[in-house]
Amino acid sequence: MQQRARVLIDCSDKKGLVYKVSKIFYDLDLNIVSNQEFVDKDSGHFFMRSVVTGKFDVAKLEERLNNTIGDIAKISVIPPNKKDIILMATKESHALGDILIRHTAGELDANILAVIANRDNLKELVERFNIPFIQISSDNITREEHEDLVLNELAKYKFDYIVLAKYMRILTPKFVSAYEGKIINIHHSFLPAFIGANPYKQAYERGVKIIGATAHFVTNDLDEGPIIAQDVISVNHRYDWRDMQQAGRDVEKVVLSRALKLVLEDRVFVNTNKTVVF
Amino acid sequence: MQQRARVLIDCSDKKGLVYKVSKIFYDLDLNIVSNQEFVDKDSGHFFMRSVVTGKFDVAKLEERLNNTIGDIAKISVIPPNKKDIILMATKESHALGDILIRHTAGELDANILAVIANRDNLKELVERFNIPFIQISSDNITREEHEDLVLNELAKYKFDYIVLAKYMRILTPKFVSAYEGKIINIHHSFLPAFIGANPYKQAYERGVKIIGATAHFVTNDLDEGPIIAQDVISVNHRYDWRDMQQAGRDVEKVVLSRALKLVLEDRVFVNTNKTVVF
Amino acid sequence: MQQRARVLIDCSDKKGLVYKVSKIFYDLDLNIVSNQEFVDKDSGHFFMRSVVTGKFDVAKLEERLNNTIGDIAKISVIPPNKKDIILMATKESHALGDILIRHTAGELDANILAVIANRDNLKELVERFNIPFIQISSDNITREEHEDLVLNELAKYKFDYIVLAKYMRILTPKFVSAYEGKIINIHHSFLPAFIGANPYKQAYERGVKIIGATAHFVTNDLDEGPIIAQDVISVNHRYDWRDMQQAGRDVEKVVLSRALKLVLEDRVFVNTNKTVVF
Amino acid sequence: MQQRARVLIDCSDKKGLVYKVSKIFYDLDLNIVSNQEFVDKDSGHFFMRSVVTGKFDVAKLEERLNNTIGDIAKISVIPPNKKDIILMATKESHALGDILIRHTAGELDANILAVIANRDNLKELVERFNIPFIQISSDNITREEHEDLVLNELAKYKFDYIVLAKYMRILTPKFVSAYEGKIINIHHSFLPAFIGANPYKQAYERGVKIIGATAHFVTNDLDEGPIIAQDVISVNHRYDWRDMQQAGRDVEKVVLSRALKLVLEDRVFVNTNKTVVF
Repeated sequence: MQQRARVLIDCSDKKGLVYKVSKIFYDLDLNIVSNQEFVDKDSGHFFMRSVVTGKFDVAKLEERLNNTIGDIAKISVIPPNKKDIILMATKESHALGDILIRHTAGELDANILAVIANRDNLKELVERFNIPFIQISSDNITREEHEDLVLNELAKYKFDYIVLAKYMRILTPKFVSAYEGKIINIHHSFLPAFIGANPYKQAYERGVKIIGATAHFVTNDLDEGPIIAQDVISVNHRYDWRDMQQAGRDVEKVVLSRALKLVLEDRVFVNTNKTVVF
Repeated sequence: MQQRARVLIDCSDKKGLVYKVSKIFYDLDLNIVSNQEFVDKDSGHFFMRSVVTGKFDVAKLEERLNNTIGDIAKISVIPPNKKDIILMATKESHALGDILIRHTAGELDANILAVIANRDNLKELVERFNIPFIQISSDNITREEHEDLVLNELAKYKFDYIVLAKYMRILTPKFVSAYEGKIINIHHSFLPAFIGANPYKQAYERGVKIIGATAHFVTNDLDEGPIIAQDVISVNHRYDWRDMQQAGRDVEKVVLSRALKLVLEDRVFVNTNKTVVF
Repeated sequence: MQQRARVLIDCSDKKGLVYKVSKIFYDLDLNIVSNQEFVDKDSGHFFMRSVVTGKFDVAKLEERLNNTIGDIAKISVIPPNKKDIILMATKESHALGDILIRHTAGELDANILAVIANRDNLKELVERFNIPFIQISSDNITREEHEDLVLNELAKYKFDYIVLAKYMRILTPKFVSAYEGKIINIHHSFLPAFIGANPYKQAYERGVKIIGATAHFVTNDLDEGPIIAQDVISVNHRYDWRDMQQAGRDVEKVVLSRALKLVLEDRVFVNTNKTVVF
Repeated sequence: MQQRARVLIDCSDKKGLVYKVSKIFYDLDLNIVSNQEFVDKDSGHFFMRSVVTGKFDVAKLEERLNNTIGDIAKISVIPPNKKDIILMATKESHALGDILIRHTAGELDANILAVIANRDNLKELVERFNIPFIQISSDNITREEHEDLVLNELAKYKFDYIVLAKYMRILTPKFVSAYEGKIINIHHSFLPAFIGANPYKQAYERGVKIIGATAHFVTNDLDEGPIIAQDVISVNHRYDWRDMQQAGRDVEKVVLSRALKLVLEDRVFVNTNKTVVF
């Protein structure tokens, strides 16, 4: 029976990597469906994503790759590879709703295990899609207490990624390091950037003509992790700050869904504080 | 003989402005070719740009408008209204070259009186277009001394706008206030923004997926004047910082030329630190 | 009590229209919140959309406008002006789902009365949103018979617009004329265009680098009614025709929702076979 | 001394190609700077572009590649590889001017040998850049006679590509086959497409909201060769057909220059009637 696997390699660059990897594929009589590599000269890192088909034992292929290139290498097999994800949100439905609709249409190679929210605004929407909605209120407790409750809830699940679909609370370093490289966030972006409260009001007062959104992995630098995808939308002087916010929502949902899809297809490698997106 | 004029009105908002202005046009038997208005609720300002045709005396029309709406009102007549502009540059040719080519093709309603540059790199290019190239070197003199030389040179011309086509020197408040609302600049923009030296290197290290450009009027807040136009271009992990810079140049020239065209057609009103662009 | 109304005027152009309309507003002590006009020189038509506030009787304002400009004029009052819409679909959920999510979030100024579909694929999705789902199968009956059933169903409702959210059946002239100017459709668009079966396969074989979507009013010229909104998305040689179709869906849903929003805000005028979009 | 080469491979797909090619690089101790491959399942073709550095004899590397993969393979060495190009134009300066400015700035890895035009409008512009301008008038002669004159002129040069920078004459099959795969054209594109005279007027009458441009290799199917690059620009109801044409020019010049750059960097493979762009 034919198998199919995405072979993901992320290691220090050295001469002959493509040769050595492709030799393994050749020796095992695997067919390369697609293949992309990238070498980052600055970080000295090599990234490769191959889709191969053939008859092979996943563990043995992985072992052989590890033996040959002697370095960190990840391998994953696709057919059983619907990723498991947890969504987190607060009260806005645009980003969450877009993911729910795409999930329903079978566009996302993922199982949504649950939606965790600090408010209950989205309960009705989420439950319409037969997805567990877990409200963990942050009222009258400290940030740390709230996060502990969330972490306890998360500990009940085995999942691949947490998607912050407009989860409006800042995560502590403790939370972030517990799920390093596994949390995807979306936030509005402007040219120039605005720091502080109500950036849309600031953007309006500044008269920007473009509003953007950035999807990124979360690190301990707030809104500063490796960027996965970005896009923008045009606005003009007729937009008040609420119109700008609405335009921002439209681009946020598009960018988050695009980033999520790339991640689910194993197309995104983290490269120091950047990404390689195949 | 039919005349044609752009009627530009920028005044405090009050009830009946459209009525009063359109009544003047009606009484004078003028035809409204196009008409756009905007009221900024926050600043309490009214902006209007009408293109009218008919038989009229420009000064009298202006007087009548002033008498009626009793406030600051600008009026300009188009047929003789090729604006006079001065270009300033340093050594990069992309933004300047795009303006020169468009000017040659008759796309810009402007006379280019001269190009002033602090270096001589662009001399050959500019002189090919039979436009005076004036180098005012900044070597071995202070910023103030250099600016005085530039101001002396500018004083020889009667012009409407200065276009900074990648003029890489910071202007002092003295210079800026001498030509307030008359200086158009282009600069790269990123999401997020980067402060300090070589922003392209920073953008590369940050792994941005989009590079932008902003054309704006120059005020004493560096890179912070009213925005006229913005646009972006996509980049990816295969771009090193020089590739990003090249992509940035491509969007800079497009945005500066677009902004210049809007300004030359009297479509841009400054509204506190924003613009209204009709 | 303050009222608010959108005043929409669509009539033959003649001198003094802006003056006459703004005089009525002035005489009635109405405040103009926003105002846009456009004159199409070719069709000799005048279009105007004003948002006014004040104390007024809608019917009397309308009558006065009609008396003064002596021509077809439409006026609508906004506060009770949630438009009623019927959605029609077949089996794809992307465009329909985006409208449902936006509706839930309160983004669309509309009541969705029902979803009519020729298949049952979308029943579950629609009913999750507590919206009536009416399947009218087209199996084993003629196109005319099927349409009569749909027309009978539609006759039960009082609605403003029909939105074809990927309704994959061709409408007959009888249907179209029954709801002239009230049917909004979305379809993929390519450069160049492809006629015939499976245009995505054709686009793939042609190697297009861009895929577009067009939202338009339906007329008897198939896919040829007045265009409301268009947008595109980039693709490349790594996209097979199914990937292109998916990219096409992403842009289709964005463009249809944008067009619907413009229509619901009374921003779209039909001008012969074009639109004026304020 | 280190050499640098782009290795371009275009052959029937078979198992082990990446392995075999990368083995040659490995055996010759070459460093892979970048590497991209693509397999077209439909055409059964394999495309690869590697940039390698090291010490090697170009002819021997090419021979070895040919011996190993036993099929059509192209190899080119970059350092001496400024491509030689001929530009052809008629009277519009936007696309031509953009190429001239980029060439002056050193952005294009090309020598412009000459500009051939059927009119003399662009003579002054071209000669400003010290590039030979050759007018071959088409007045009073047949299309075939005119083309023979052009072909005779072209025969005097050794060049890699002909760039039609708004050359407004249709090329005969004779001309096209003489320079198959070597002629790059730019033309406006619309959604939907318009056939016949003055497509901008048709686009205006159709009320399109987007205007596009397509750069492609010329084949005997008029405007139908393999697409290299496409882009669009937004327009609205305020654009008359001349404004649309101007917007079209802005996107045409951007797309043609982008396509030319891709071709000059050997990033474009023709794949039946499509392209693979690395």
